[in-house]
Amino acid sequence: MPSLDLGSLSLERKASLLSGRDMWSTEPLPDAGLPEVLLYDGPHGLRYLEDRTDTADIYGSVPATCFPPAVAVGASWDPEVAAALGAALGREARALGVTVVLGPGVNIKRSPLCGRNFEYYSEDPLLSGVLGAAHVRGLQGEGPGASVKHFAANNQETDRTRISADVDERTLREIYLPAFERIVTEARPATVMASYNKINGVHATENRWLLTEVLRQEWGFTGAVISDWGAVHDRVAALAAGLDLEMPGDGGVTDAQVVAAVRAGELDEALVDQAVARVVALAGRVTPATGDLDVDGGHALARTLAADCVVLLKNDGEVLPLEDVTTVAVIGAFATTPRFQGGGSSRVNPTRVDTPLDEIAKHAADRGQSVTHAQGFTADGSGDAGALREEAVTVASNAQVAVVFAGLSDNQESEGYDRETIELPAEQVELIHEVARAALRTVVVLSHGGVMSLEGWHDEVDAIVDGTLLGQAGGGALADVLYGVVNPSGHLAETVPLRLQDNPSYLNFPGEAGHVRYGEGVMVGYRYYTSADRPVGYPFGHGLSYTTFSTDELTVTPTGDDTARVSVTVTNTGTRAGKHVVQVYVATTAGKVRRPARELRAFTKIALEPGESRTVVLDLDRRSFAYYDITASRWAVGPGEYRVQIGADAHHVLAEAAISLTGDKGLTPLSMDSTFGDWLDHPIAGPALMRKLSERMRDMTKEDAKIAAQHPDWLKMAAGVPMSQMITFTGDALPAGWLEELIEISRSG
Amino acid sequence: MPSLDLGSLSLERKASLLSGRDMWSTEPLPDAGLPEVLLYDGPHGLRYLEDRTDTADIYGSVPATCFPPAVAVGASWDPEVAAALGAALGREARALGVTVVLGPGVNIKRSPLCGRNFEYYSEDPLLSGVLGAAHVRGLQGEGPGASVKHFAANNQETDRTRISADVDERTLREIYLPAFERIVTEARPATVMASYNKINGVHATENRWLLTEVLRQEWGFTGAVISDWGAVHDRVAALAAGLDLEMPGDGGVTDAQVVAAVRAGELDEALVDQAVARVVALAGRVTPATGDLDVDGGHALARTLAADCVVLLKNDGEVLPLEDVTTVAVIGAFATTPRFQGGGSSRVNPTRVDTPLDEIAKHAADRGQSVTHAQGFTADGSGDAGALREEAVTVASNAQVAVVFAGLSDNQESEGYDRETIELPAEQVELIHEVARAALRTVVVLSHGGVMSLEGWHDEVDAIVDGTLLGQAGGGALADVLYGVVNPSGHLAETVPLRLQDNPSYLNFPGEAGHVRYGEGVMVGYRYYTSADRPVGYPFGHGLSYTTFSTDELTVTPTGDDTARVSVTVTNTGTRAGKHVVQVYVATTAGKVRRPARELRAFTKIALEPGESRTVVLDLDRRSFAYYDITASRWAVGPGEYRVQIGADAHHVLAEAAISLTGDKGLTPLSMDSTFGDWLDHPIAGPALMRKLSERMRDMTKEDAKIAAQHPDWLKMAAGVPMSQMITFTGDALPAGWLEELIEISRSG
Repeated sequence: MPSLDLGSLSLERKASLLSGRDMWSTEPLPDAGLPEVLLYDGPHGLRYLEDRTDTADIYGSVPATCFPPAVAVGASWDPEVAAALGAALGREARALGVTVVLGPGVNIKRSPLCGRNFEYYSEDPLLSGVLGAAHVRGLQGEGPGASVKHFAANNQETDRTRISADVDERTLREIYLPAFERIVTEARPATVMASYNKINGVHATENRWLLTEVLRQEWGFTGAVISDWGAVHDRVAALAAGLDLEMPGDGGVTDAQVVAAVRAGELDEALVDQAVARVVALAGRVTPATGDLDVDGGHALARTLAADCVVLLKNDGEVLPLEDVTTVAVIGAFATTPRFQGGGSSRVNPTRVDTPLDEIAKHAADRGQSVTHAQGFTADGSGDAGALREEAVTVASNAQVAVVFAGLSDNQESEGYDRETIELPAEQVELIHEVARAALRTVVVLSHGGVMSLEGWHDEVDAIVDGTLLGQAGGGALADVLYGVVNPSGHLAETVPLRLQDNPSYLNFPGEAGHVRYGEGVMVGYRYYTSADRPVGYPFGHGLSYTTFSTDELTVTPTGDDTARVSVTVTNTGTRAGKHVVQVYVATTAGKVRRPARELRAFTKIALEPGESRTVVLDLDRRSFAYYDITASRWAVGPGEYRVQIGADAHHVLAEAAISLTGDKGLTPLSMDSTFGDWLDHPIAGPALMRKLSERMRDMTKEDAKIAAQHPDWLKMAAGVPMSQMITFTGDALPAGWLEELIEISRSG
Repeated sequence: MPSLDLGSLSLERKASLLSGRDMWSTEPLPDAGLPEVLLYDGPHGLRYLEDRTDTADIYGSVPATCFPPAVAVGASWDPEVAAALGAALGREARALGVTVVLGPGVNIKRSPLCGRNFEYYSEDPLLSGVLGAAHVRGLQGEGPGASVKHFAANNQETDRTRISADVDERTLREIYLPAFERIVTEARPATVMASYNKINGVHATENRWLLTEVLRQEWGFTGAVISDWGAVHDRVAALAAGLDLEMPGDGGVTDAQVVAAVRAGELDEALVDQAVARVVALAGRVTPATGDLDVDGGHALARTLAADCVVLLKNDGEVLPLEDVTTVAVIGAFATTPRFQGGGSSRVNPTRVDTPLDEIAKHAADRGQSVTHAQGFTADGSGDAGALREEAVTVASNAQVAVVFAGLSDNQESEGYDRETIELPAEQVELIHEVARAALRTVVVLSHGGVMSLEGWHDEVDAIVDGTLLGQAGGGALADVLYGVVNPSGHLAETVPLRLQDNPSYLNFPGEAGHVRYGEGVMVGYRYYTSADRPVGYPFGHGLSYTTFSTDELTVTPTGDDTARVSVTVTNTGTRAGKHVVQVYVATTAGKVRRPARELRAFTKIALEPGESRTVVLDLDRRSFAYYDITASRWAVGPGEYRVQIGADAHHVLAEAAISLTGDKGLTPLSMDSTFGDWLDHPIAGPALMRKLSERMRDMTKEDAKIAAQHPDWLKMAAGVPMSQMITFTGDALPAGWLEELIEISRSG
């Protein structure tokens, strides 16, 4: 790391380090030995643009490997996939001389409509955090630094630069922040990227609570906070809030504002020094560009990783893998022009692209199968849909199985705008209807960034393979899965709803008048569907295999007041090797807040040979049982029963064991504002109160007692009355001094 | 009105007028000629307690007529019912010397679980406001003053004295405040009662925005604001916020605080004088107690009104009215011990009580029918459920029709606590199952304060009569409806959901940690079910009749930029006289916010003889088309199409006509923060911008143009980018000075 003597630098030179020199690099100080730092997209492949001043070029990057986007990696449920991908990015970055690779994106998929969901892992913060941390470890292990983004609550594209995400703190702490928290504390990313949006009215880039109190003081982040490109609105306020590096540069305009603010006494120069030190520290990772991209190696890895991300949603009659057939009809525009990545800043110029049809043809040839093809539809909806469909139906009816490559095209989803529907385009639905009617058996392979409804055609087809967006080698990976070369092991990282309207954010998304209300609170994704007992298309966590697994011998043992150890034995009961994900959920009503029906608290993916058994041991930490208590500003574990569940998915429990946890000690202190019910619940004050009132009841007239007995609701009503008000009804039965004594006892308790 | 010279009163004497003398009266100043003012519950009958100092007596009030509670009046959809009820209350209040009668309660039924829903009219603010205004007019026309309550957003009993209703302003303005607004502006109530809860963190009693800015400055309220009993936490803050009279009194403690605050210069004495003047003005309504209660007249009116509140939910095979039968089995505890009012401060000590069994027996005797009875179950769940059920089944199987009186008992719902389920007690469901199996035909009559699910037994019975809580003459009213003496004309004022989980507040109710998030925003009740296309048990507005009506000749004509007139012809196409409710809904996507699928904007109830037609003309005012625009802090009518719909209920449209409204003139001014899309949408700036960019496009290289054409998503992405950021991409294509000119033009446009 360059050791720069800040004292020797003028304020102007220091300020110049706090915004980019251009679109993609920081200001160097050659005389001080400080090199430029290159920061480039992106999360699943390098988007390296040689002209660093061309602000409008979004498609002309140098070729690089397009690995599977986060939507796919999320479905792998495998941190090893994320780590291998991160490491490969790190190697490509080194080859290009890039020091900070922008990613991973770990925002939560709040609504299926978010146009950028393909850049995010999951609707679940644990899954997102574990995968994101693995990505960062893999990437940074190769040298370059990561930039975890978009911090925070950037869950939509609509009005993204102005919208205020109005989210309560419990929801932020339990849903939208934990992935960042895990990555920061476990993987120590070089940078965190502050997002475009506002959080509760304050821009993320100017949000001191977020960037300094939570990120640095609570989580111990020591790297640099950088802005999303163009996200800074008030440079001085942003610096004071904890934003170190503004990107891109603007020719020194905001640097001058920083200087002026210091000179005017409005900004402490120590804050400038602190930010400069963090930007300078980034330069410690700089290495010159060395070697070439490993095009072949990258592509091969991209294929291996992609195959682990494929989710087999449905496989009636074991139509897959395509082994016992002689004729296969491949249908759909995406079979020849695959959709494998999303639009916007993450778009990679791929080194090569596998097409599914070609890869299927290779596997088919090995097996002596004949393959036919029809386009069926066009990705952009052009052409004569009727004629295309007719041709496809003819092809399908002459094969033993039809494989339809359906999905969304580039301009139906992208960074920059949100979707308005989760349906397949109508002409594709019509095609599936007709192919399914004409074909002996029908398999649908889906390519898409955002989750899609399967309603209207799901029941008509035999198998569904969810390919999301698999990167440049996705065509090969899909062929490998279709032919059983790879046994599918992906699981949904996001619920497939029956209808868009069922999503808990439906009526609040994407907000209005500058605000988006996170009205569903912590009840995001499967937390909502399971808690409101709402049926879904396929649950979070769902994924089939070509083999079968059994789950036995669950034991759960507390390892402390608020921790436990889970042990479970998994056996591959089928005839093929395969990978299985152990999903551990915790369900409870303990604590003082409404808990989701169950929450994912641990998971691991294991590979098992046919007949092989393995006992998996997973530790559940305090956080696995905790909720965020806004009244005490801390995580809390309520005393009580916790059911630890092994789920086939979020809706189906395979095994369950209950444990009792002591939870947090210490009692809530009473006050005169506490309700009569709070007082009765208190282990010391409650009994004392009842004794006192019983004494008084003995003095009741017969008539009063009779009336009271006729109205058993009075105690229920009284439970909600604050003690300060209750004493106006109880007269001298509860003397003030006596209550004060109990309050004192409750405070020391 | 007493003309009191405030100048002659000491500060101490003035302050003494600002809190009650005891539980039920204000401090008089006999030497100044100021009488005491008596304020008593309640909304559907007087709860006059002679001992004004006994704070604990909640059941010993002097007998008075128990009229139908608001839950029933809501179902009448008839302001004449509310007005007649109000006037009768006024007469009884005069007989008792009561000057302010606490009611009506016009809070919105946000959740079916709210224990006090029986005291409120509806889930819809228009229906609540129209009925509440009629009640106040009826009451105040007789002399006494009303107290509209509970102001505001007091939509639950759980933690009601501390909970903060966290509601955004659009939702407050469109859902939770309009009933109050209508009553204040149209019926000028003597008092408004500030509620127990907090609104967005500030107690209603200390909420200056609510009590002064909205209530007085915007709505022009000139009466007195009083506190709910015990709702004041900081007397000085409450006075400064606009709370005039604290109830009940506390022996002068808070009066002294007011005096001290004025003396310390912390409170302007003018505020004290203002509040005193308002309390003194109340005394102008004082009249001595005169005459006796008209017990017979009150009871007869209570029966007439109650009959108009009964909702016929289902009547398969026209099993009702009970005309062509000779034997009727009456089953259920509520047939002999009717449930007719709710628990808590509104509980009236009735002058007499009709029992359904007796009233049915009278009608049956007139028609030569025989009536048998079995208890079937006990209201409190005691006794041998099996034996009771067996007896009921025997009785049912020997009659031509079984009428089961089912429902909720007193201690299953009340003021003071919320329900946890909307199901009938299990033993009653079991009884209905078995009776329906045994009986030829089965009618269920429901008595309950909060809405109930009918699932699990609905399909097994032939008819369902919803009696909610009908007051002391409800037994007679129900008999009148069952026998066709009165043709039912009630309609649901609240959606009957299939399941509690379907309610939009389900996962946020009743909140936690001192906060309840109104996460569903304006999507309350039918606004949610229709907008999310969610099936319900019975829709808001549903109600059958023994006759039939046709709805024809709908015409809708704009009467201005933002108003319209609706004309529709209704014909009684059946053979009985009956009453019909014309329900006018407006549906639109105009404006810049998400609108509910449709909203009730006008209604009227008309009586028609068989074959009679009537053309109903209803005016839709500006508010009928408006939404609350939080960015401009005003009501806004967007230009565009509005569909005016005549609904059989909120889910079923009988007739529809579309109109175009000019709406609000004036364009939203542009700024550099406006998005590129905002600029393109602007009628002047948009075309100018496109011309400028086209010029630039001509200079594009062929290669650039080709790439742009391949990526049609770029314009969609760009639409969300603020102009301030856009210009960093467009270079010198959009000169700053030129954009500034357009901004100027947009400001003057």
